[in-house]
Amino acid sequence: MTDLNPADGILAHDLDRAHVFHSWSAQAALNPFVIAGGSGSTIWDYDGKHYLDFSSQLVNTNIGHQHPAVVNAIKAQADLLTTVAPAHGNLARGEAAKRILGLAGPRFGKVFFTNGGADANENAIRMARLTTGRDKVLSTYRSYHGNTGAAVVATGDWRRVPNEFARGHVHFFGPFSYRTEFWSDSPEQESERALRHLERVIQSEGPSSIAVILLETIPGTAGVLVPPPGYLEGVRALADRYDIVLIFDEVMCGFGRTGEWFAWQGSAVAESPVIPDLITFAKGVNSGYVPVGGVIISESIANAFEHEVFPGGLTYSGHPLAMASIVGALDAMESEGIVRNAASVGAEHIGPGLAALAEKHPMIGEVRGVGVFWALDLVDDPATRAPISTAVIGQLKKELKTRGLLPFAADNRIHVVPPCIVTPDEVAQALDIYDEAFTAVTA
Amino acid sequence: MTDLNPADGILAHDLDRAHVFHSWSAQAALNPFVIAGGSGSTIWDYDGKHYLDFSSQLVNTNIGHQHPAVVNAIKAQADLLTTVAPAHGNLARGEAAKRILGLAGPRFGKVFFTNGGADANENAIRMARLTTGRDKVLSTYRSYHGNTGAAVVATGDWRRVPNEFARGHVHFFGPFSYRTEFWSDSPEQESERALRHLERVIQSEGPSSIAVILLETIPGTAGVLVPPPGYLEGVRALADRYDIVLIFDEVMCGFGRTGEWFAWQGSAVAESPVIPDLITFAKGVNSGYVPVGGVIISESIANAFEHEVFPGGLTYSGHPLAMASIVGALDAMESEGIVRNAASVGAEHIGPGLAALAEKHPMIGEVRGVGVFWALDLVDDPATRAPISTAVIGQLKKELKTRGLLPFAADNRIHVVPPCIVTPDEVAQALDIYDEAFTAVTA
Ligand SMILES: Cc1ncc(COP(=O)(O)O)c(C=O)c1O
Ligand SMILES: Cc1ncc(COP(=O)(O)O)c(C=O)c1O
Repeated sequence: MTDLNPADGILAHDLDRAHVFHSWSAQAALNPFVIAGGSGSTIWDYDGKHYLDFSSQLVNTNIGHQHPAVVNAIKAQADLLTTVAPAHGNLARGEAAKRILGLAGPRFGKVFFTNGGADANENAIRMARLTTGRDKVLSTYRSYHGNTGAAVVATGDWRRVPNEFARGHVHFFGPFSYRTEFWSDSPEQESERALRHLERVIQSEGPSSIAVILLETIPGTAGVLVPPPGYLEGVRALADRYDIVLIFDEVMCGFGRTGEWFAWQGSAVAESPVIPDLITFAKGVNSGYVPVGGVIISESIANAFEHEVFPGGLTYSGHPLAMASIVGALDAMESEGIVRNAASVGAEHIGPGLAALAEKHPMIGEVRGVGVFWALDLVDDPATRAPISTAVIGQLKKELKTRGLLPFAADNRIHVVPPCIVTPDEVAQALDIYDEAFTAVTA
Repeated sequence: MTDLNPADGILAHDLDRAHVFHSWSAQAALNPFVIAGGSGSTIWDYDGKHYLDFSSQLVNTNIGHQHPAVVNAIKAQADLLTTVAPAHGNLARGEAAKRILGLAGPRFGKVFFTNGGADANENAIRMARLTTGRDKVLSTYRSYHGNTGAAVVATGDWRRVPNEFARGHVHFFGPFSYRTEFWSDSPEQESERALRHLERVIQSEGPSSIAVILLETIPGTAGVLVPPPGYLEGVRALADRYDIVLIFDEVMCGFGRTGEWFAWQGSAVAESPVIPDLITFAKGVNSGYVPVGGVIISESIANAFEHEVFPGGLTYSGHPLAMASIVGALDAMESEGIVRNAASVGAEHIGPGLAALAEKHPMIGEVRGVGVFWALDLVDDPATRAPISTAVIGQLKKELKTRGLLPFAADNRIHVVPPCIVTPDEVAQALDIYDEAFTAVTA
């Protein structure tokens, strides 16, 4: 930690308010929290106050803040070569692609790099449309896929609504036992009925018009909705039956978040891995240290573009700094057992700890998750499951921050999403803080 | 220049061919040129062969390769803090926005940061649609605006065609005296007729349905089409008459490329500056050292989102490494007079030099450009202006590369687009190489 000057915090705040336009907000009311630095699971402000970062920023710092292996990889590549056009070859890019394909397994042939999650989904959708010759993209209402043309309309949540300028998108309901759309009374029934609903949508839209089923393997921003038993297997079967390309959006759930390299590889979502045709990624692949994302492409879809032109591209595809940061991050995650840590801390500390909190605080209607990817679904009344008000969420955020925890909140939920390197000790501290904050807002 | 190992070049090539999926290409035929390093206007391969980079990669390395001020800014920020969520404040972000607004002038109020040019256009279009309450986006056939949903359909060239999944886009013809669509016989007449055509399109589409006119101030990839006298003034007047938001896409032409900070500020395009409502940028702002782009927003459009939510955002908006690289790049460009250099080298060396080449080689049908932003429009026959074949362009690229110049080719054109820091000496070397290459392919 370098010397901090509180005046810099004030300057950063004032410059921001004067000049910076913010995402997903009305600008007048903003009062951004200024972060001065970070290390591991901790960040601090210019007054030197420390916070446990249980948001991982936007659920992206899987390797924690300022991991030296990634910082050094970026600095070394900066000294070597910072930018190169995508058409030219670059050593870091091949190394990054090789590692990613090694983790995804033999069914996958190539990686196409983008700048983030949204354009990963744009390009995956493009690949699917071109190889199937069909137009429609099916995705769930409870989803977020990014902010660009097709990605934001594939998105199911409210962010889609003012942005519906892409055609060919159809939304359906995914499984969500706690707030079922299918009048189910068990996860098994939820799964069965959600599959029945999806098949009815496919049949009603006309299978020959459908290019893609796009799913977050575990929907993230929508509430960490771990799919019930059999659901992903069933979706894969439907995609096969109707010749539809299956895309798993692993932008948030990929690269360690669930305690697996990819969420689809884990037993939390399926007894044996359900393999998609395309995987989109960003965030965890390099913990967001440099903007990057991409599409992992099955052998067969990659082969379709051996002799056909792929009509998509971007200036910074395979950017050297981004590539070097991926190599640095994945090698460190591998050698330091960071993904395994996420699995064990999740199973042994976060899961049981949150369950205990739920026992104590009736406001916590459900605890869902795996690895370092959890949500607390907060309710006014456990019986009706009526979502808690935004006012209470606001209060909770304040109580958590006051006590030194940077939270992630969405709708009526607090997501518990620390870095994959989080320690049992940090989890214990965080659990105490959550406990105190719930007690404070209940009072 | 660090020690080079030719085996690394082979490894990079092989890893690329095995694992990397490339933009805008059929994959089978690719044979990427591997770049090992660069400095200023020069890059080199792993055999130690040097090349003058007169492509600036994808017309982005305005400050040249590996400018120490930018590399050091990136490394310093990497040590401090590599990633922060957009909602939180960050000192580098405010500093970057302040500098950009300082260059754009007092009509502009805020900057929204994105990851590149495509998502800059996506968000600018979104702002225009939301503030006007209208849907349609008018853009020219000779244009490129990026690869995501709306950006690629706003694009006019062939890259749009397989990707038309966004609605609300209308294309019109811009002015291009050398290949007029308006049967004009002077730049003045071209301007007048192009404006008449645009107004007829506006009237025929229905002005009350049109949110945006989106123009590259100087269309770049389409051929460095410097607008004829009065055109931009006329477009501004039409936008005002019909209450349409005017967006200038300065992704390629901005930040020094034309010898001005913004192309719209220069006398090459208008007698006195024509000010747009939104400016989109990327590339030159930090020379592509870290992926970044953005929208510079007029006071009045920024104000429209003071109390209304702006429904757009992305994980890496205002990414600290990108922001630090902008601050480093813009400060160095300012203090080293790099934009002035682009203007003077363009006016005194590149322009006259290319004109002399055109005198000598009848294949060069027209020379167009300003600053370090030039195109040679190559023809089979100066009388018919029939574009030269792709085979000849292929040959030319080979001859140029053999002689140590990395070229930029598009359709029937060679674009002469070195970094803004290019010296008269480097220009003289390059002119000799172009001369020899034209002689070789003519033989
Ligand atoms: C599942 C998912 N997909 C896509 C995105 C979009 O990624 P980006 O913000 O990098 O465009 C996000 C971002 O939160 C996400 O969570
Ligand atoms: C004028 C213009 N706009 C937009 C873009 C898209 O930028 P990016 O490739 O960073 O998405 C480009 C890229 O070449 C461009 O030249």
